[in-house]
Amino acid sequence: MILTVTPNVALDITYEVERLTPHASHRVVAMRQRAGGKGINVASVLTLLGHDVIATGWAGGSIGEQVRADLDARGIAHDFSASEGEARRTVAVVSREMGDATVFNEAGPQHTAQSWGVLSDHVVTLSRRLGASAVVLSGSLPPGVPVDGYADLVARVHEAGAVVVLDADGEALRSALRAGPDVIKPNREELAAATGIQGVAEGVAALRARGARDLVVSAGPDGLSWHPTDGPAVSGRLDEVLSGNPTGAGDACVAALAAGLGRGLSLDDTLRDAVAWSAAAVLQPVAGAVDPDDVLRLRRQTVVKELP
Amino acid sequence: MILTVTPNVALDITYEVERLTPHASHRVVAMRQRAGGKGINVASVLTLLGHDVIATGWAGGSIGEQVRADLDARGIAHDFSASEGEARRTVAVVSREMGDATVFNEAGPQHTAQSWGVLSDHVVTLSRRLGASAVVLSGSLPPGVPVDGYADLVARVHEAGAVVVLDADGEALRSALRAGPDVIKPNREELAAATGIQGVAEGVAALRARGARDLVVSAGPDGLSWHPTDGPAVSGRLDEVLSGNPTGAGDACVAALAAGLGRGLSLDDTLRDAVAWSAAAVLQPVAGAVDPDDVLRLRRQTVVKELP
Repeated sequence: MILTVTPNVALDITYEVERLTPHASHRVVAMRQRAGGKGINVASVLTLLGHDVIATGWAGGSIGEQVRADLDARGIAHDFSASEGEARRTVAVVSREMGDATVFNEAGPQHTAQSWGVLSDHVVTLSRRLGASAVVLSGSLPPGVPVDGYADLVARVHEAGAVVVLDADGEALRSALRAGPDVIKPNREELAAATGIQGVAEGVAALRARGARDLVVSAGPDGLSWHPTDGPAVSGRLDEVLSGNPTGAGDACVAALAAGLGRGLSLDDTLRDAVAWSAAAVLQPVAGAVDPDDVLRLRRQTVVKELP
Repeated sequence: MILTVTPNVALDITYEVERLTPHASHRVVAMRQRAGGKGINVASVLTLLGHDVIATGWAGGSIGEQVRADLDARGIAHDFSASEGEARRTVAVVSREMGDATVFNEAGPQHTAQSWGVLSDHVVTLSRRLGASAVVLSGSLPPGVPVDGYADLVARVHEAGAVVVLDADGEALRSALRAGPDVIKPNREELAAATGIQGVAEGVAALRARGARDLVVSAGPDGLSWHPTDGPAVSGRLDEVLSGNPTGAGDACVAALAAGLGRGLSLDDTLRDAVAWSAAAVLQPVAGAVDPDDVLRLRRQTVVKELP
């Protein structure tokens, strides 16, 4: 059983309009909405690929209800912590004439150190009760949560007996490292931002000096590199370049890492999954989706080799 | 007791952003949300001015819950009809750099002739039970409601013993006239659009030929003209020009008409209220708001005279 924790769950709303004209009034010609947030996408991918997973985090108020209704419709199991305030929304406006969305991100409700403590208790209790093998901590911390909130939670999940995959960036990532999360998955840009260093090997060394254990660094079409605490780094990539929607690739990668670590797969096999799941996500129009047939095919196209 | 019916209730969301840039991602720096729709604004004005009123209509799903929570917070009594589907939202994006909002209007849930029948039953039952003196029918009909939906409802409300103030436009207005709503309140543009005629007197005659009884035509800073079925037309206007936000002026006017008709005030007194309430609404930043002190002061500045 895997548990994904999304402190900053969102209801992602997409509006299609004929043409976006600033300062005008628009008729929304098509509307979609979906539960969003990195950990939700991780849980979605795991569900689609037949893994046992429960999504948790905060999803308060009426917006939280809409989030839960969407998860129910998608067959994603969830058990959120009680929360004051309404969950946040994001609104993406897609113009039929032009491609890129115009996005508006709400900040979400204000939390406190105390409410973070309640969520942490909930995660640890769930983790123990379910006998979770892996806990995924994904995404940014909402306003009001102590910036080192993940550090405390990593330590408590370890005590509860699960491995931790952490997908965060900036100070939330840096300050969590002292608790030694089992795997962190920055992309190249996040690694550079967290360390102020451009090179991957140097960035990895800098985060390890702060307490990081295994690092899996994603580099878009250049694939992944896994930097274990013991042994040489290994790269994994597809033997072709896919075009598509990279939005959910990182979350699919994290899902594969959690599934591999949770079941005790070898580094090579887990890395192969991570490459294949990420690539399968690129072929989908929305984050959190993968086609199992794509995964099977793409895994055979994955090349894993030791880095020099 | 006044009943306001809003078939197309909305949750009006306002996002403030630093600067609106199409195809970019924006942090929402301030967010407000409020129950919206013309009949909601009418009920709000009546509540603020101490009149007994209940807001009804459709407010389905989790978004409907947010609508009701806002009404509760504002002290506006409500009793909505059960509804399938989620109420609609509108999102207005206000850029701190520029004034005008960029607005996105959801279509709202699909209804049917049958569901309109259920809402009509609910309105008639409420109207009888409360002994409503006036029923206000406000705004557009949602997708799927028969275009002559208001006609049937006007007839049934009359049977229940209440007067009807109708504030609609286009075909929803035209097709309701055969049922003889007691007062309709088109603005000059709506009158021209409904008749294809530019002049007010000619437009009034055209709608009367279709079944209209009293008409109150609003003309922004030029005030109101009341065209009764018997007797000469009367104009009412303020003795100064106000600058402000005209968004909620029409709804405040409708509120005054319902309050005056409901209590059996004279045409002159009701018209004076309608001018003062509309003007007081112009002084407020949002629709549905008026300051009772403004109403009192502005009523003394209102000039009523018979039209030639």
